[in-house]
Amino acid sequence: MGRVTARRKITRITAGARTERVDTLAVEEPLELRVGGESLMVTMRTPGDDFDLAAGFLVSEGVVTAEADLTTMRFCAGKDETGENSYNLLDITLAPGVSAPTPSAKRNFTTTSACGICGKDSLDDVRTKSTWDLTDDLSTFKAEVLAALPDRLRAAQKVFDKTGGLHAAGLFSAEGDLLAIREDVGRHNAVDKVVGWALRTGRLPLRQTILMVSGRASFELAQKAVMAGIPALAAVSAPSSLAADLAEESGLALAGFVRADTMNLYANANRVI
Amino acid sequence: MGRVTARRKITRITAGARTERVDTLAVEEPLELRVGGESLMVTMRTPGDDFDLAAGFLVSEGVVTAEADLTTMRFCAGKDETGENSYNLLDITLAPGVSAPTPSAKRNFTTTSACGICGKDSLDDVRTKSTWDLTDDLSTFKAEVLAALPDRLRAAQKVFDKTGGLHAAGLFSAEGDLLAIREDVGRHNAVDKVVGWALRTGRLPLRQTILMVSGRASFELAQKAVMAGIPALAAVSAPSSLAADLAEESGLALAGFVRADTMNLYANANRVI
Repeated sequence: MGRVTARRKITRITAGARTERVDTLAVEEPLELRVGGESLMVTMRTPGDDFDLAAGFLVSEGVVTAEADLTTMRFCAGKDETGENSYNLLDITLAPGVSAPTPSAKRNFTTTSACGICGKDSLDDVRTKSTWDLTDDLSTFKAEVLAALPDRLRAAQKVFDKTGGLHAAGLFSAEGDLLAIREDVGRHNAVDKVVGWALRTGRLPLRQTILMVSGRASFELAQKAVMAGIPALAAVSAPSSLAADLAEESGLALAGFVRADTMNLYANANRVI
Repeated sequence: MGRVTARRKITRITAGARTERVDTLAVEEPLELRVGGESLMVTMRTPGDDFDLAAGFLVSEGVVTAEADLTTMRFCAGKDETGENSYNLLDITLAPGVSAPTPSAKRNFTTTSACGICGKDSLDDVRTKSTWDLTDDLSTFKAEVLAALPDRLRAAQKVFDKTGGLHAAGLFSAEGDLLAIREDVGRHNAVDKVVGWALRTGRLPLRQTILMVSGRASFELAQKAVMAGIPALAAVSAPSSLAADLAEESGLALAGFVRADTMNLYANANRVI
């Protein structure tokens, strides 16, 4: 594989002067997931940790909750039209009794209403699918631990240094120790890779942990935290309204604009002491 | 509507001191698009300019190329379970002879290979679907015009100032005049809203224009530029490998890390003088 970065010839303009050079870019490639032979989704991702990505995606969708729910994951064994294995097609077999998800435009919404979905449906949907109740996890986190995470995440980002083009998701212990970090062109993929790693190493639910993300906190990222049983989500930048609503309703502590000396707590502020 | 921002009570921690305050967040809500009564997709977006978003999405998918291809777009006229119209379901009717897209996990890939898709397939797919050939557009752009765009985009971002949580896409003339700007929690939505505005005002293809985006340049954003006939894409941050490949192959000028005095040109550097 080794396709995390790629080199391209570029033209750099500095104060009006043009120079030719070679630059390193983050690789983006499509990954197709098939479950039981049926195409489930295609995501544009940075290659690497694809088994984790697939497993984490299935956790987020409420399909699997333990490693035993996955019987096999393997790349397509054949070659594509160019005679190469693209390593971009993952075949997944679920354990007997585990229901396969339905690929659909409305996959994320099991409840539908007569005249369209709304934010409330999105929240209800996560509640319906979630196996773990974050309110059972009474862990609290020190504000100074949270405040140190952006620098720790940034320090652990290997590929970003080369490309400036990757999002990162880091999982930390309540004491602020880094448990896992993944980078990807897509924020949601980086989180899926962390959660999938946790599933595949028997760590779900991720009690007493903090998920730190490099960008903003969208509903989708809050959903992924809740579905993995993570009680705290911290972001370098702003959350959306629906991310804050989901966090509040689920018992998830949500911190945004986390800096060395300031942060905003948007939900379950009592978890941060 | 008027649901672009929402107010939430937050706890702010500054140098160890906690204060309660009210903060303004960017709204995120699901939008479902139906074409001919069939659910096509659900996107999490910031409400507002939803007709533009829908139209732009259909341009990106190669479904429509002119306003006449859309017969009607209207919000669901009923009420949802709470007795309110959520304004989150858009019904679209295509003109006779315009083929409806197929909702599918592989929607973006008309070509498939025996053992998985690859970046090459993604590029081929855009070429197959694209109506306009960017190489027919011989427009060039001054480097000093490009260098000024990040500040102009930032100055025109109304909601970002309040929330710090929105991406922006701005369409500029070759002289650097702002033609349209849209903000959204999702970068791809912001671009769809700009492109949809252009379709609905009879401006496609968008020859001699520059699309400036607030974050990174992914394959998806480059695809949207190509499908709208935009000859130049500029980003505040890094492009991915596949965005650079698509730009090179399509005749799209791609600039990244655009600053007041430096920028990197990743493809078709001869368009920038």
